[in-house]
Amino acid sequence: MLDIAAELTEWLAEGRAFAVATVVGASGSAPRGPGAALAVDAEGTVIGSVSGGCVEGAVYELCAQALVDGAPVLERFGYSDEDAFAVGLTCGGVIDILVTPVGAERAVSAGAAERAVFARAVEAAGQGEGVALARVMRGPAELVGQALMVRTDGSYEGRLPDALARTLADEAKALLDAGRTGTVELSEDGSRCPGGLTVFVESSLPPPRMIVFGSIDFAAALVRAGKFLGYHVTVCDAREVFTTRARFPEADEIVVDWPHRYLARTSVDRRTVLCVLTHDPKFDVPLLELALRLPVAYVGAMGSRRTHEDRNRRLREAGVAEAELARLRSPIGLDLGGRTPEEVAVSIVAETVAVRHGRGGGALGS
Amino acid sequence: MLDIAAELTEWLAEGRAFAVATVVGASGSAPRGPGAALAVDAEGTVIGSVSGGCVEGAVYELCAQALVDGAPVLERFGYSDEDAFAVGLTCGGVIDILVTPVGAERAVSAGAAERAVFARAVEAAGQGEGVALARVMRGPAELVGQALMVRTDGSYEGRLPDALARTLADEAKALLDAGRTGTVELSEDGSRCPGGLTVFVESSLPPPRMIVFGSIDFAAALVRAGKFLGYHVTVCDAREVFTTRARFPEADEIVVDWPHRYLARTSVDRRTVLCVLTHDPKFDVPLLELALRLPVAYVGAMGSRRTHEDRNRRLREAGVAEAELARLRSPIGLDLGGRTPEEVAVSIVAETVAVRHGRGGGALGS
Repeated sequence: MLDIAAELTEWLAEGRAFAVATVVGASGSAPRGPGAALAVDAEGTVIGSVSGGCVEGAVYELCAQALVDGAPVLERFGYSDEDAFAVGLTCGGVIDILVTPVGAERAVSAGAAERAVFARAVEAAGQGEGVALARVMRGPAELVGQALMVRTDGSYEGRLPDALARTLADEAKALLDAGRTGTVELSEDGSRCPGGLTVFVESSLPPPRMIVFGSIDFAAALVRAGKFLGYHVTVCDAREVFTTRARFPEADEIVVDWPHRYLARTSVDRRTVLCVLTHDPKFDVPLLELALRLPVAYVGAMGSRRTHEDRNRRLREAGVAEAELARLRSPIGLDLGGRTPEEVAVSIVAETVAVRHGRGGGALGS
Repeated sequence: MLDIAAELTEWLAEGRAFAVATVVGASGSAPRGPGAALAVDAEGTVIGSVSGGCVEGAVYELCAQALVDGAPVLERFGYSDEDAFAVGLTCGGVIDILVTPVGAERAVSAGAAERAVFARAVEAAGQGEGVALARVMRGPAELVGQALMVRTDGSYEGRLPDALARTLADEAKALLDAGRTGTVELSEDGSRCPGGLTVFVESSLPPPRMIVFGSIDFAAALVRAGKFLGYHVTVCDAREVFTTRARFPEADEIVVDWPHRYLARTSVDRRTVLCVLTHDPKFDVPLLELALRLPVAYVGAMGSRRTHEDRNRRLREAGVAEAELARLRSPIGLDLGGRTPEEVAVSIVAETVAVRHGRGGGALGS
């Protein structure tokens, strides 16, 4: 639902009543995954989508009815043989949809108290802040539909019972930190043992940052590969003539500045990926001295093995500790043997994925 | 030079005289790599480019002069401090340019005999056939500028001395097979010891094929990653409703057919990559039975480890030999731990690169 935060922020600001249908489970070849949403207001205006179109009509009716009833609904949709199958193949796509009515601003209804929580979550997501919205999808009637909004610092808002809210906020924050949307099984009393309560937790995080230092030819392919993986990509180099929009049309941001100076003034987080392609000790050493002390996801530096040895020596001389140095991925990338800019870019982004998930990168089938 | 084959084919057909300047060496942050070319005809018309613009003027003059002189020229260009540097960084981009005059069709000139060789190579490249054009860039005056055209089957054309032509054709074919453009050092007598002859070999190959079987959701990301790496990408599945242009806008080709039937009728080569995402024994087994016996670069199949064990058992039952089975990359991809379609696509294309270059895919820095 947070994928349509921008539109919902407007609806909330205008005081409209609406119901929002969210995909909370998907299997088979369901066209849209958990989190995808469609909302319908009291006048019948629709935004968003929960499928390629097949079940949109039925979901629209569910939303309209939920607005009248003021109660949340959980419903499962399968794809019929006629729609999805051809030449005898089995597919079996199924989606579960949670419909939550969100009352009008001044309405005294069951949904009114939830409106504030919804509004904060939607507003935060719309502004690109990290936020999770947890909604009870199965459990006792008085809890179903209740919502909790959780921020990246662990703080939360909602009117669930204290013990349950605390546990749920913890679980939701873990999902949020990983940028994941999914369900959590809990007990009503707030214990972590599955006990009749199923909560759908939807995470919305701004894209992680990739900062590419060094506007060399290879950097253009890395920018494209980074965008493919969903990074917000910045290119930084001190050389104005090379660091241009024309050379990096797909970059989100282009910065002409000394690499270490830029890194010192920009904001990074635990998902940030730093790719150092400058391969000149003049820039690499002060930049890596700083980078290896930041709580980022990945620091990789380009260079031959000889450059790598030389750079490590200089970093040690500059006072970088062995534990800090051990964080450096150098030479950058997985050992794919590629030489074209695109092959090198794939080896680098593949390594950022492997590091994110704590894997070694060898063949799965070995 | 083969990068402007389409335009040069027209010039040749019209009987125009022209000179073509080709980047034969590049270092530092040269904007265009070996093979990039610019051509100038007798009227002064220009096509192509050898740099971002900095040296184009000087190269134009070289071409015009070579057309008058009828002799090839090799020249080096550096980038001046003023053009390429800012805030005191050193870069030092340097390019070497080989200018070859190609005489008019009926002209009796030193270049006329070469024209036929040029014409065949340019025509083949323009039609998407694999071809290498070898040109002597340094050596005795009577050999400099001489050209040899080499095809993927090893056959060649040109008027170099027999022994030299044979060796050079071998070397050029090796580069062509790898899709590489570069220089070869030889002796004048055709021995492989470097002995005063430097030959620039330019390869032109149609892009390698990637065939994605199974139009599942993940396939769309794989198509994009395949295109990023320069593959000509085909998606094939028997299910008409899923196998559509709307779902795979970036695919070069979309085929509705039974996977094994399509594979039997389409053409593949040693660079072809087959990605089997169908994960249903009904399709996988007949498809892999065929795929594992084809001389392709890569065969990978998606599926959990359990699917993998089950599939291997069925393939053995179907008579697939252990040596054939050993070629199967299953579960497909490198072990990056990713779960999003984009992460999975990166793990698959990274494995195709690693297999192409005979590498294991672990971290370079380990």
